[in-house]
Amino acid sequence: MLKGKDIVSISDLSEREMQRIFSVARDMIPIAEGKEKSELLRGSILATLFFEPSTRTRLSFESAMHRLGGSVIGFSNPASTSLSKGETLADTIRTVNSYSDVIVVRHPLEGAARLAAEFAENPVINAGDGAGQHPTQTLLDIFTMLQEFGHVDGLKISLIGDLRYGRTVHSLAVALSYLGADVHLISPRTLKMPKHVIREMHHEPEIHERIDDVLRDSDVFYVTRIQKERFPDPAEYAKVANSYTITRKMTEEMKKEAIIMHPLPRVTEIEPEVDYTPRARYFKQAFYGVPVRMAILALVLGAIE
Amino acid sequence: MLKGKDIVSISDLSEREMQRIFSVARDMIPIAEGKEKSELLRGSILATLFFEPSTRTRLSFESAMHRLGGSVIGFSNPASTSLSKGETLADTIRTVNSYSDVIVVRHPLEGAARLAAEFAENPVINAGDGAGQHPTQTLLDIFTMLQEFGHVDGLKISLIGDLRYGRTVHSLAVALSYLGADVHLISPRTLKMPKHVIREMHHEPEIHERIDDVLRDSDVFYVTRIQKERFPDPAEYAKVANSYTITRKMTEEMKKEAIIMHPLPRVTEIEPEVDYTPRARYFKQAFYGVPVRMAILALVLGAIE
Amino acid sequence: MLKGKDIVSISDLSEREMQRIFSVARDMIPIAEGKEKSELLRGSILATLFFEPSTRTRLSFESAMHRLGGSVIGFSNPASTSLSKGETLADTIRTVNSYSDVIVVRHPLEGAARLAAEFAENPVINAGDGAGQHPTQTLLDIFTMLQEFGHVDGLKISLIGDLRYGRTVHSLAVALSYLGADVHLISPRTLKMPKHVIREMHHEPEIHERIDDVLRDSDVFYVTRIQKERFPDPAEYAKVANSYTITRKMTEEMKKEAIIMHPLPRVTEIEPEVDYTPRARYFKQAFYGVPVRMAILALVLGAIE
Repeated sequence: MLKGKDIVSISDLSEREMQRIFSVARDMIPIAEGKEKSELLRGSILATLFFEPSTRTRLSFESAMHRLGGSVIGFSNPASTSLSKGETLADTIRTVNSYSDVIVVRHPLEGAARLAAEFAENPVINAGDGAGQHPTQTLLDIFTMLQEFGHVDGLKISLIGDLRYGRTVHSLAVALSYLGADVHLISPRTLKMPKHVIREMHHEPEIHERIDDVLRDSDVFYVTRIQKERFPDPAEYAKVANSYTITRKMTEEMKKEAIIMHPLPRVTEIEPEVDYTPRARYFKQAFYGVPVRMAILALVLGAIE
Repeated sequence: MLKGKDIVSISDLSEREMQRIFSVARDMIPIAEGKEKSELLRGSILATLFFEPSTRTRLSFESAMHRLGGSVIGFSNPASTSLSKGETLADTIRTVNSYSDVIVVRHPLEGAARLAAEFAENPVINAGDGAGQHPTQTLLDIFTMLQEFGHVDGLKISLIGDLRYGRTVHSLAVALSYLGADVHLISPRTLKMPKHVIREMHHEPEIHERIDDVLRDSDVFYVTRIQKERFPDPAEYAKVANSYTITRKMTEEMKKEAIIMHPLPRVTEIEPEVDYTPRARYFKQAFYGVPVRMAILALVLGAIE
Repeated sequence: MLKGKDIVSISDLSEREMQRIFSVARDMIPIAEGKEKSELLRGSILATLFFEPSTRTRLSFESAMHRLGGSVIGFSNPASTSLSKGETLADTIRTVNSYSDVIVVRHPLEGAARLAAEFAENPVINAGDGAGQHPTQTLLDIFTMLQEFGHVDGLKISLIGDLRYGRTVHSLAVALSYLGADVHLISPRTLKMPKHVIREMHHEPEIHERIDDVLRDSDVFYVTRIQKERFPDPAEYAKVANSYTITRKMTEEMKKEAIIMHPLPRVTEIEPEVDYTPRARYFKQAFYGVPVRMAILALVLGAIE
């Protein structure tokens, strides 16, 4: 039911379509782990057009395509392309469209992926466009919660850190509210969730300034990176970075089933000691990017109904 | 009959060999479109050595190899290679030759591809060497005309724009003249086709300075990019760029079967509105790069006779 | 017997394990040459993480993986990765580990590969870490000698050039001494083999300052690159570079069976004319990187016992 579909924004997907992606992703896990082989996309070509740096997203899409027997072309360094000759994005997309079957695009400008989708006949998947959307990240975040808890509705989910600029957290907050989660927002005053995002949410979220407010009863701590560059005053950054760091000590006060997630890369928001606690789920979450992207590729290419 | 052959210059190919490439390319189209699968080059490795930026040529060669089930190694950014350690091109080529079955090379210096071909035991395909040759571009240009008209001889083909520095247009002019086309050259005075190219042509071409001279009776308008850098005076550039731009209005005066081609990337030589007219054939032309390169790879590797 | 094993240092391998690698590598030669096809690693993914430039090592690992039917993801330009966002190596490795089955890492800092091996569940192969180890180079060097002479013990092997900074030559000297070779060290005074390496060797090596001392009776001349940057005084460099250059004339005085090896890239240490003498074996040596790496990949992935 997703054949030929562009995935530019999480709102392009109905709840039924999301459930289909999750169901296929679940079946993909043994293949993503390398335990089973698949030739599902043999002969198909994914083009990965990264106009901005990325390790995780690019490599996990490429891994997803290879695990299904498909091939990959593309670039990760726009300086080595014709764009340096003044070509428009529309022309690049139309050309690459004729060399491939599906396009994944990351671009620094909001709206770039939507533009790409208009000019490409084949499906386009947005892998992040500036301050805009990154829908496959939202899908893998929700998939991680589903794998851990079996459901999302009723979970107390605390989104923590930079809620203002953190791209992934906006669409995640909206999606979670529609899936019935109890969303809490914890951030310094200067990095609060934008009002327009809150207005889009299904329920009014609870807003806090201290992790301590949600520490004992959250099911999910979704932590995001606080970027130094956002603060004109280094002292202010240090203060904020410190009070929004998850420590090993904090994990001991969390609920027994609670998990800690992070879209990665992390810098100082989670102490390295936390990695070895049973709360840490961010590397598992990174892994889930592979089966979720395998599902998306297989579905938009029509290899699975 | 092309097994093991280097393709450095279009003049390396006899007319019979070109016809063979076109005939195989025609059969490759459904595979290039992803409608049929092929394992023809399974286990074979293409090395793409790009010492200069390129999207189109590199990605279309990689797409061609993958569509036939083969693999690709290489680089698109010479800074990330041993060349930064002072290695000669000859040594790089000999090494890469032992890692692969066929080499595609783009290099800023004229003659680099010929040198590479001398040092590699495996076939070398020139993907552009400075002001020199780019034979697979010439082949896909001619293939596009053949697909559109069924023949090249007798066609009135107008080459428009920068005929002086435009690399691809030199070998195209010569090849078209030998195939019996009626070649017209339209360029500003400062960007005229070099005399040595005209001397190589089979027939004397007609030379014009205004597109208007050929607008009503050309079968093919082959437009090339006029680069700002060529003009010391920006005012001079603006004037030229303006009068050598194909507009939507102009397309209405063209013959009904006329087509507009461009090797891409384009900047301002063709108005975006032209893309939606039935004259535009440049994206189709870009696509034809894939089956033509599939044919070349399959033939030089001996997978097809 | 190597399944799941990290190969960070040559000393991670027992002599029996090395012999196993060589034996498998021998069987891989026709596949490495493209004469036979293999699907041994179909569905498996190699991640190549190059934090430093490399042509040879990266491309030969990629070729090795493709020849066995496997896939490759990775980067060769750390600027285009999340490392530019301040991510630690440990986090990058743990993430990439979940996208792949085996990791090859090159890093400018000594100890980086060992760190990577600690954080990755899958096998990690060190492709050079600063002044540290480059074990697959050592293996292919020894493999080349075995292919040429059938044995290493008793061979007179002269290591020539920069023995101080030349990364590959340290572990090679130690390994050769344990395999019973008669190792000679020839270098300018300022570029002598470090004492700690000599102490690790099984036999005391003979030390010389002039190639002439070993010219007539060496079986193997293993020449290394002398880097200009090592010399504060350009005149001193010129003097040294000159007297440590293998010339065509010198090859005439060598033993009939003697061979010249070089890890490449070379700059001026071997005259180009030497390439055409029957002594030159450095390009063959580069080729042997492919079957040796095929053997290592197949063994650590458990595809071969």
